[in-house]
Amino acid sequence: MVSFAKRMDGIKASDIRALLALAARPEIISFAGGLPAPELFPVQQMKAAYDAVMDENGSVALQYGQTEGWLPLRQQIADRLAVKNDIHTDPANILITAGSQQGLDFVGKLFLNPGDVVVMESPSYLGAINAFRQYEPNFVEVPTDENGMIMEELDKVLANTPNVKLIYVIPDFQNPSGRTWPLERRKQFMEIINKYEVPCVEDNPYGDLRFKGEFLPALKSMDPKELIIYFGTFSKILSPGVRVGWTVTSAAINEKLNLIAQASVLQPSTINCMAVSKYLDMFDVDAHVATILPVYKHRCELMMNTIRETFPAEAKFTDPDGGLFTWVELPERINTRELAAIALEKGVAFVPGDGFYPDGKTKNCMRLNYSCSTDEKLVEGVKRLAAVIKEALG
Amino acid sequence: MVSFAKRMDGIKASDIRALLALAARPEIISFAGGLPAPELFPVQQMKAAYDAVMDENGSVALQYGQTEGWLPLRQQIADRLAVKNDIHTDPANILITAGSQQGLDFVGKLFLNPGDVVVMESPSYLGAINAFRQYEPNFVEVPTDENGMIMEELDKVLANTPNVKLIYVIPDFQNPSGRTWPLERRKQFMEIINKYEVPCVEDNPYGDLRFKGEFLPALKSMDPKELIIYFGTFSKILSPGVRVGWTVTSAAINEKLNLIAQASVLQPSTINCMAVSKYLDMFDVDAHVATILPVYKHRCELMMNTIRETFPAEAKFTDPDGGLFTWVELPERINTRELAAIALEKGVAFVPGDGFYPDGKTKNCMRLNYSCSTDEKLVEGVKRLAAVIKEALG
Repeated sequence: MVSFAKRMDGIKASDIRALLALAARPEIISFAGGLPAPELFPVQQMKAAYDAVMDENGSVALQYGQTEGWLPLRQQIADRLAVKNDIHTDPANILITAGSQQGLDFVGKLFLNPGDVVVMESPSYLGAINAFRQYEPNFVEVPTDENGMIMEELDKVLANTPNVKLIYVIPDFQNPSGRTWPLERRKQFMEIINKYEVPCVEDNPYGDLRFKGEFLPALKSMDPKELIIYFGTFSKILSPGVRVGWTVTSAAINEKLNLIAQASVLQPSTINCMAVSKYLDMFDVDAHVATILPVYKHRCELMMNTIRETFPAEAKFTDPDGGLFTWVELPERINTRELAAIALEKGVAFVPGDGFYPDGKTKNCMRLNYSCSTDEKLVEGVKRLAAVIKEALG
Repeated sequence: MVSFAKRMDGIKASDIRALLALAARPEIISFAGGLPAPELFPVQQMKAAYDAVMDENGSVALQYGQTEGWLPLRQQIADRLAVKNDIHTDPANILITAGSQQGLDFVGKLFLNPGDVVVMESPSYLGAINAFRQYEPNFVEVPTDENGMIMEELDKVLANTPNVKLIYVIPDFQNPSGRTWPLERRKQFMEIINKYEVPCVEDNPYGDLRFKGEFLPALKSMDPKELIIYFGTFSKILSPGVRVGWTVTSAAINEKLNLIAQASVLQPSTINCMAVSKYLDMFDVDAHVATILPVYKHRCELMMNTIRETFPAEAKFTDPDGGLFTWVELPERINTRELAAIALEKGVAFVPGDGFYPDGKTKNCMRLNYSCSTDEKLVEGVKRLAAVIKEALG
């Protein structure tokens, strides 16, 4: 008899993927995805990078490579982290992953026995919940406000919860809420986790996508006890299709993550690591990011202005300083999963918020993506959504 | 306190990777790896494929894609499997993985609770043992002879072992033994697993690399109950650096593997899937494989002839009809792990056999790779090894 492992009881299809399939119909205006704007990809530059790799080093690029990933790329990442994020690490403590999702899987595998506790912001990234759920933990959610995780609540949770093995946070332009932690909260957070000595994933896919306000330091730059497992990725600043992300950890954790990577996947794609490395050699990735920022800033402001003009007063929302998402909170009597079905009929898609809560109990929120729409669609989509919400509010 | 999950107790560094690091020193003649010959990679053709993808469809290639992988590639794989292997499947039941190692991890995750039993050939692929070990199973080894798994022994194991959740086999040019199951054993195997209804991974990375003897049908082509989880890969016929493999399963298993892929890694690399697909469109992969075969045949024969000329009579070995490896069995008093250290001092590297046995108890075997050496090194390396073995035999 074919029977599946117990862990499969908890592994469900992602709402986002299911919705994206529907939202991909051409007549739908979709705020459901989390895609970078494809018209901004540096296609010709990336082509030149692949060409150069193949011309200079083709038989290396097509061959097996290191589990930890192409060393020159890890050196470039270390150099960039030092300059931009004040994170100082040896490339030996960087592991290239096939996107940050793979890092989440590896970290779950490394830390979590069934029944162990993962502490997260409430709400948090659906993909992280799904990755960790494979290892059958219990989730404890820490309440948030417009400035992200409430640190007094985190302290209470850690003081009162046994078996907390891992904390997962996104301090910059969080997915889904679009919120960013101020400096004071970051310092408080580090004090608290240093007190309890719990390892913590700082997932930072959006940090470079700040189009307003002042740069804030990464938790990893304030981490003398090396409790922070820092995740970066090229997905949002260069290309998600190459699947190149990375983790920065202590030597002890990195050694274990390498063993997991070896057993799980042998290595990342040699050619993609080399092409990203060559791109960083040949071109200025920060100059490329500088071409993205005004576009996202414009789209964000257009969405937010249209929301302010058209949404009913009962709707609250984040005004993000960067990243890809805003988050709308409606009165508690509104179920956004039901609303999403109605909105799809009216030709507009969003992701209902309940999937971003491990307990699934908060039903009145929605995530809206602005990075991937034209001006016309942004305005028209928000107007349609406003009408759907007003109709639901009655 | 930072503490790791219980599963980490069983996750150790791979011998192959540790040895490869030493064997990579330029003065060492290495038979330790399992690398395709890099001078045979179709570098210019692959460059043309990446170029065409970027010119025609660059912003799609750099964007997020489907969890299951680029549909045209899955259609091409389905078409090729039908023609070459008499395996008939809908592309919807193919999942692209980042190499077969990722498929092994996904299958372990899908089927194995701690304490469940995985049945394998004795010896079997070290990477599969490591992938499954992450899910804390017990391994039961089925004895083999020069024709692979002994089916009467398999029947006994399945009759007498509770909680067998998965069988793992490599019927063609097995890693590490180089052995191939004859047709009669394949039929017996299918009868047996149909009787017990246990799902089975048929890992077939080397099937296309037959340079002697007659083609033998895949287990998957004789699988009316859809118990076979078939693994294929482009690693050995095109490039391991692109990390593109695939699984072919029943719709029910495929649906679960897709959920795992989504939670573990979101998707394979869009650009690599599209480049491999484009390569298959633009060029004739079988014509490329036809350029590999005579080289591997020659290297294999040169290694085997030199072994026959120089090894002591007590050494037994496989004479492979394809693939990358031969397997040498020495008298039981010889410990090949100790021998490997001595051989390294004499400038030749191989992988000691004990890592290929889940119980690690068989100490007198070694795996030799012939695909990746020049004629001169093949002869010189085997001669040095012969001297080391003779010295050890006394």
